[in-house]
Amino acid sequence: MPDQNGGSSGAGSGLFGAVFARGGASGPVADDAAWLRSMLATEAALARALERAGLASRGAGAAVTKAADANFGPAELAELSRAAALTGNPVPGIARVLTRRVADPAARAAVHAGATAQDIMDTAAMLVARDALGAAIADLTAAADITARLADAHRRTLMTGRTLLQQAVPVTFGLVAAGWLSGLDSAAEWLAIVRDTRLAVQFGGAAGTLASLGADGARVRALLAEELGLADPPLPWHTERLRVIDVAAVSARACAALSKIARDVTLLAQTEVGEVKGNPVAAVAVLGCARQAPGLLATLVACAEQEHQRAAGAWHAEWQPYGHLLQLAASAAAWARDLLGHLDVDTARMAANLAEAGGLPLAERVTALLRGSLGAPQAHDLVAAAAARSASSGVPFRDVLLATPEIENTLTKAGISQARVESALDPSGYLGSSEAFITAALDAHATLTLPRPG
Amino acid sequence: MPDQNGGSSGAGSGLFGAVFARGGASGPVADDAAWLRSMLATEAALARALERAGLASRGAGAAVTKAADANFGPAELAELSRAAALTGNPVPGIARVLTRRVADPAARAAVHAGATAQDIMDTAAMLVARDALGAAIADLTAAADITARLADAHRRTLMTGRTLLQQAVPVTFGLVAAGWLSGLDSAAEWLAIVRDTRLAVQFGGAAGTLASLGADGARVRALLAEELGLADPPLPWHTERLRVIDVAAVSARACAALSKIARDVTLLAQTEVGEVKGNPVAAVAVLGCARQAPGLLATLVACAEQEHQRAAGAWHAEWQPYGHLLQLAASAAAWARDLLGHLDVDTARMAANLAEAGGLPLAERVTALLRGSLGAPQAHDLVAAAAARSASSGVPFRDVLLATPEIENTLTKAGISQARVESALDPSGYLGSSEAFITAALDAHATLTLPRPG
Amino acid sequence: MPDQNGGSSGAGSGLFGAVFARGGASGPVADDAAWLRSMLATEAALARALERAGLASRGAGAAVTKAADANFGPAELAELSRAAALTGNPVPGIARVLTRRVADPAARAAVHAGATAQDIMDTAAMLVARDALGAAIADLTAAADITARLADAHRRTLMTGRTLLQQAVPVTFGLVAAGWLSGLDSAAEWLAIVRDTRLAVQFGGAAGTLASLGADGARVRALLAEELGLADPPLPWHTERLRVIDVAAVSARACAALSKIARDVTLLAQTEVGEVKGNPVAAVAVLGCARQAPGLLATLVACAEQEHQRAAGAWHAEWQPYGHLLQLAASAAAWARDLLGHLDVDTARMAANLAEAGGLPLAERVTALLRGSLGAPQAHDLVAAAAARSASSGVPFRDVLLATPEIENTLTKAGISQARVESALDPSGYLGSSEAFITAALDAHATLTLPRPG
Amino acid sequence: MPDQNGGSSGAGSGLFGAVFARGGASGPVADDAAWLRSMLATEAALARALERAGLASRGAGAAVTKAADANFGPAELAELSRAAALTGNPVPGIARVLTRRVADPAARAAVHAGATAQDIMDTAAMLVARDALGAAIADLTAAADITARLADAHRRTLMTGRTLLQQAVPVTFGLVAAGWLSGLDSAAEWLAIVRDTRLAVQFGGAAGTLASLGADGARVRALLAEELGLADPPLPWHTERLRVIDVAAVSARACAALSKIARDVTLLAQTEVGEVKGNPVAAVAVLGCARQAPGLLATLVACAEQEHQRAAGAWHAEWQPYGHLLQLAASAAAWARDLLGHLDVDTARMAANLAEAGGLPLAERVTALLRGSLGAPQAHDLVAAAAARSASSGVPFRDVLLATPEIENTLTKAGISQARVESALDPSGYLGSSEAFITAALDAHATLTLPRPG
Repeated sequence: MPDQNGGSSGAGSGLFGAVFARGGASGPVADDAAWLRSMLATEAALARALERAGLASRGAGAAVTKAADANFGPAELAELSRAAALTGNPVPGIARVLTRRVADPAARAAVHAGATAQDIMDTAAMLVARDALGAAIADLTAAADITARLADAHRRTLMTGRTLLQQAVPVTFGLVAAGWLSGLDSAAEWLAIVRDTRLAVQFGGAAGTLASLGADGARVRALLAEELGLADPPLPWHTERLRVIDVAAVSARACAALSKIARDVTLLAQTEVGEVKGNPVAAVAVLGCARQAPGLLATLVACAEQEHQRAAGAWHAEWQPYGHLLQLAASAAAWARDLLGHLDVDTARMAANLAEAGGLPLAERVTALLRGSLGAPQAHDLVAAAAARSASSGVPFRDVLLATPEIENTLTKAGISQARVESALDPSGYLGSSEAFITAALDAHATLTLPRPG
Repeated sequence: MPDQNGGSSGAGSGLFGAVFARGGASGPVADDAAWLRSMLATEAALARALERAGLASRGAGAAVTKAADANFGPAELAELSRAAALTGNPVPGIARVLTRRVADPAARAAVHAGATAQDIMDTAAMLVARDALGAAIADLTAAADITARLADAHRRTLMTGRTLLQQAVPVTFGLVAAGWLSGLDSAAEWLAIVRDTRLAVQFGGAAGTLASLGADGARVRALLAEELGLADPPLPWHTERLRVIDVAAVSARACAALSKIARDVTLLAQTEVGEVKGNPVAAVAVLGCARQAPGLLATLVACAEQEHQRAAGAWHAEWQPYGHLLQLAASAAAWARDLLGHLDVDTARMAANLAEAGGLPLAERVTALLRGSLGAPQAHDLVAAAAARSASSGVPFRDVLLATPEIENTLTKAGISQARVESALDPSGYLGSSEAFITAALDAHATLTLPRPG
Repeated sequence: MPDQNGGSSGAGSGLFGAVFARGGASGPVADDAAWLRSMLATEAALARALERAGLASRGAGAAVTKAADANFGPAELAELSRAAALTGNPVPGIARVLTRRVADPAARAAVHAGATAQDIMDTAAMLVARDALGAAIADLTAAADITARLADAHRRTLMTGRTLLQQAVPVTFGLVAAGWLSGLDSAAEWLAIVRDTRLAVQFGGAAGTLASLGADGARVRALLAEELGLADPPLPWHTERLRVIDVAAVSARACAALSKIARDVTLLAQTEVGEVKGNPVAAVAVLGCARQAPGLLATLVACAEQEHQRAAGAWHAEWQPYGHLLQLAASAAAWARDLLGHLDVDTARMAANLAEAGGLPLAERVTALLRGSLGAPQAHDLVAAAAARSASSGVPFRDVLLATPEIENTLTKAGISQARVESALDPSGYLGSSEAFITAALDAHATLTLPRPG
Repeated sequence: MPDQNGGSSGAGSGLFGAVFARGGASGPVADDAAWLRSMLATEAALARALERAGLASRGAGAAVTKAADANFGPAELAELSRAAALTGNPVPGIARVLTRRVADPAARAAVHAGATAQDIMDTAAMLVARDALGAAIADLTAAADITARLADAHRRTLMTGRTLLQQAVPVTFGLVAAGWLSGLDSAAEWLAIVRDTRLAVQFGGAAGTLASLGADGARVRALLAEELGLADPPLPWHTERLRVIDVAAVSARACAALSKIARDVTLLAQTEVGEVKGNPVAAVAVLGCARQAPGLLATLVACAEQEHQRAAGAWHAEWQPYGHLLQLAASAAAWARDLLGHLDVDTARMAANLAEAGGLPLAERVTALLRGSLGAPQAHDLVAAAAARSASSGVPFRDVLLATPEIENTLTKAGISQARVESALDPSGYLGSSEAFITAALDAHATLTLPRPG
């Protein structure tokens, strides 16, 4: 059960928490403790809002806030659990404990007044998301800054491009890093967009009319939103769940961006490739987090089919996947920051792997060189024959091209010097727009202004 | 196989297309025909861009465009299929057919020059999305306009609120419609955001460097983007798949918003409820479309874990779910527009169902009325006893309250007139902020400016 | 963090555990505590197996077993967590604690000998599944027995059939219950099949060869399997994950069967329908559990793409969804048992709802009656006209048929007596094979012999 | 639209069909054509069953069968489509065409008699599955036979084991293949179990009672089952969807087993590893198929929450994912058979990669060797120091161990000869139970008796 103060004994840490519930400057995000804190914060803010609206006695806000600040002991947590088994959610138990804790009867009347359980849970879900998204944004931003430095530093670090896991024309590690950067920036940007525009207070009462507050409902809601620093939506969203989906979608999207990077790192770090080294646990953990995200997102999207003014099950089914997905996004971001921050790029090995290929990845360029003089068909045939001879003999493609008498003959006749062939085989001359692309990605990163909390 | 001209015999219509591939003003969206058209449009635009950049002979753009405009017959479609079985994707077959169709050798050299198959497929995917999202936006916007009129017209149409499928405090149909409107507007808005900001040309060549175009790659790409009306991204996104995820996520999100509406309609249209009537096939079809979306979205998010410069399988796995999800979103939107446009609201039945409840849903209000005079415990007990007596005897709660002598006595002593009890039982006086919420939703709808294509 | 003794304060109970981690006779299944217990049981059994194989000193098995039985305190749990952050899984920390606890150096050498971390985790996962599936089977079997009694008792309890949420031809509640029974039996049967045939020990060492045990590996594994009561598989399944998928698939399948029942109950219990009453929280909780299952199953199926001899992430990603899905299946089964065990069937309301329909659901039968005398077209038209008149006038279909002069005339001419029409309108005579179907379902239930543990 | 005769122009082939709709000896499985054929076969069998039961005129069965055998032209397909848009499914259109085609009025009355549209669709779904699962089983069985030969032939072909994509202790390629074999066999076995035990006719009429057939319903259903070679279930399963889930689950499970193999092949075939070669398109296509399966399975499991006697949307949502998943399983199996049948195992490269590791993967064995003489701590430290020196100097671990004076000294003092160290570094002596495991997998394969159709 949760430690309300979010210490390391919270359920969020758990047996697998070291891997899957990392991130969060002050303890795990979106764990039981975070949910409980957020529900209590919502109940407290509601009492303050009611007092400000003149619907609760003076001091009621402070009294309920004080009651909500006190820790929940094992007996009270057990009480929540028993009440949840009877009502289907933990809010009634929380309201009961708070009511008991507030001594003054006038103040006591402000506990949970006008609210339904879903108001408290949904608003708490927004607070949980704000913290979790904030943690993920911070780690993604840091990871992006690191990656931008890698991209810049390795603008001309040649390495083999690889398509379908086979060596292809050369790239630079800077270009690879620029691709990662682009994903990291976009991941952070959309997390921030959702955090800053889509987190709204939920307050509708039993059926979304706030009837028990008479004409004051909308005003109380505005004050509640102000107390919590959340948006005040046009109307209750009890069964319009797009906010939940948006939080989930950008979380899964961040995991997706990170999974691409971690996949590349694990492949580049293979013993036989050896082009980077890093914290192997970090790469594996990113992939382990990311693989869990799509299914959780699917659940949350499917849960949007909610009946009337409160759903019979589809709402309840959101709680666990929602919290879990937020945790995974924050955890993946934290691991990725660690991974990228300690990435050891072995430029010598990159060069060696490229040299080992013996020029074969540049065959398309040699063909292009010969096409003008020989015509496309003969150029294509000559290069294909050289590649085949290289493959069967083990002699590097470069050497076949430059040291086979009949090829020499053909080239001489065509007026193509060995120097030009050698030049065509130089990977550093076949990088196209790589550097322009790196610059563009760095420029985009530099101008990305992520709105930051507080 | 696809009819390139996208007629009703296209594969998109198929055996289930009447249900699941609806929408699209000029035929099915995102079907085989749409994919083929889009790939051909990309190849043609590339030739024009190369010509404009001075990298292809004069007239090459027009020649390739003409070749791409001609219909693909059965033999050519079979050729695509054979080539796809050998290469894993349909682009090489398309390039071969185009090459054959362009008679002039100089122009012929412009076919597919500098591009890799993924450039063509990915760019085509963006074009396919532009059309499909446009169709969905149009139908969602129309549906939202209809729903706004319903919300306005039924501001005071009383009906029973329902939570967990049980009757609760009253609401109005206008408030229900305002909730639907809020989902429709948000669905359309995010589709438009993605369509207008996230659809970008893909052009990177074999490994994302555009090496075969030397220093001209970035310029050709900008011209290609211009030709197609797509954004020109900072760098190739071959294995950074967030654009694909964004298209998928807003499509699934639109389905989610629609599923809530269709679920409500099927429940309100139940024989025993009878509060609305509509096209029953439409409601069922919306739900049938929407239920398929979460799984497809999950697949696309999972596919973002792509290796190096081109993925071995994860890219290929995107094509079908991507197209299918776009189709479902457009189809669900088209059905929803039809559903809402023909929704027959039975206000008499709404009133009758509410009357049938005999005032029981207003018990919380009666308790609030009595609380002042009787104190909370006695008020609660009196109302609970009356509700229990109503349930066991079958006598309406209202009648129990007003015609039971000992209750009468208690009320008289407490100075609460029958008129005040009657007034508390009047649902029209217990609507809280409903009308304010409707107004807020209508205002938000009125000020929502969806960017519209050309 | 887990209480190793699995008490109600284990993480499995958590804030939402009262709803989503129910079931299990002796505390929550598949929670952190269950995982920890199972990993310790595996380490202990390994030491005993090594001793029996002559590869560990006498008494080593007992010594390690004793060390594994002692509770893990907060400090040791924190140690697990720190080790997991460094290694990516909790096993190294567990092995270290056990090693420290075994005083005798000879016995100490038996701790974790020959094993890799995945051996311990995977075998523990099988033990976790055995308990969780057992709990789910017990509750499903009890629920099925209850449902069989309902089916039998309500063989002739007439009620309205409903298709697409509209009233259709009559059924009996016994037939409805027989359909539920069929799902419950199948759910339990497949859980038992997987529990009894697919749970196998995992033991392969670093790369699946058990090389460090020389020629003794296979023998030790057989003894380990015997110690734990698990199957001894042909070869290690470190990266052949079909056992994990099978556990997941039957768990999700059980949730699916239960979701249909809970959906029916929530619909039948609607205020406007009122045909059954039950524990509303139970129905909602079943739906809440079941909705989370498909996404978790998808994750586990996707995770089967595992590299070489140990996967970089896909294995790690299994732990949480696997345990969660087992919990949900057990929880849904427990709630369903409660729901069905307290289901109050309101046969009077069923009869009243049927009577309210005024015979309209039997229109197809009246048409069939008239077809012989009038011919199909005229029979169809007459019935359609009567139905339309009923709908527009509010006069019951039955009364329209029996009291409209021109219909009377037509029937008289055709030689069809009012008594035959009345008989055609009697729903109790239009039940087809309902009772035979109920009997068949009850027979199948009676002959289903679920293999039971111990 | 479908070509009823299932030729290569069927929608199943489509633009992506060459990759994703492979398999099936006589054309694509589970495409539109297969659905249409199966629905027609069901309607025909129903007429024959009715005639055999004495409920249709003599010759009615043959007449309807003849009508069902005739091809559907474009006009009739368009008619299906129009009817589907009005009714939500293609069956009413089919029934109308058949009715029109049967000239004899008595025979005409047998068309679709007693059936509801869902009866036809669901039974057709079972027929579609039978063919598709049969195709997948055939290709999986062939793939397994090939793999068994590989496992046997390469019992002693040494290669590097790899965990977390890093080299680990040695394995043999035979052991790797045996692991693949185990997955293939299990995949085929469960497909066969579902095909042979879970495919049952659906026949229940409007609400599952077969009321319009009076007392004859169950008998007609038994005859229908006989005509189609499907099981006759205890009762209709209109809204008990576990059969659909079972078909889906074993299909996704087969994809999962294949994905592991294809992932290994793509990794082993990397340019830098080069240990196998195969059809690269085949490996990519298997992965491309398999990645789509989890999401489709999730959809089908989620769709089991079906209302009352016919579901409003959840049933409809099954059709496309169900057919698509069957296609993907058959396609993945066909590609895998091709992949494994043309796999070129480069044993020299395997040996070279192992040699290149310089003995480092055997460090754990050297430690074990030294432990006896030096004690565990000193043995561990010596080996760790040697490994570190190897890593920093580039000198192979083997050479560091054997040629570093102070290590030589230590070993000599401890009485450990160089020969014993050399022997510990010999990978062929460190294979543990590998061969026993291969034999066990081959034995299990040899004794697996897959029930085969016809």
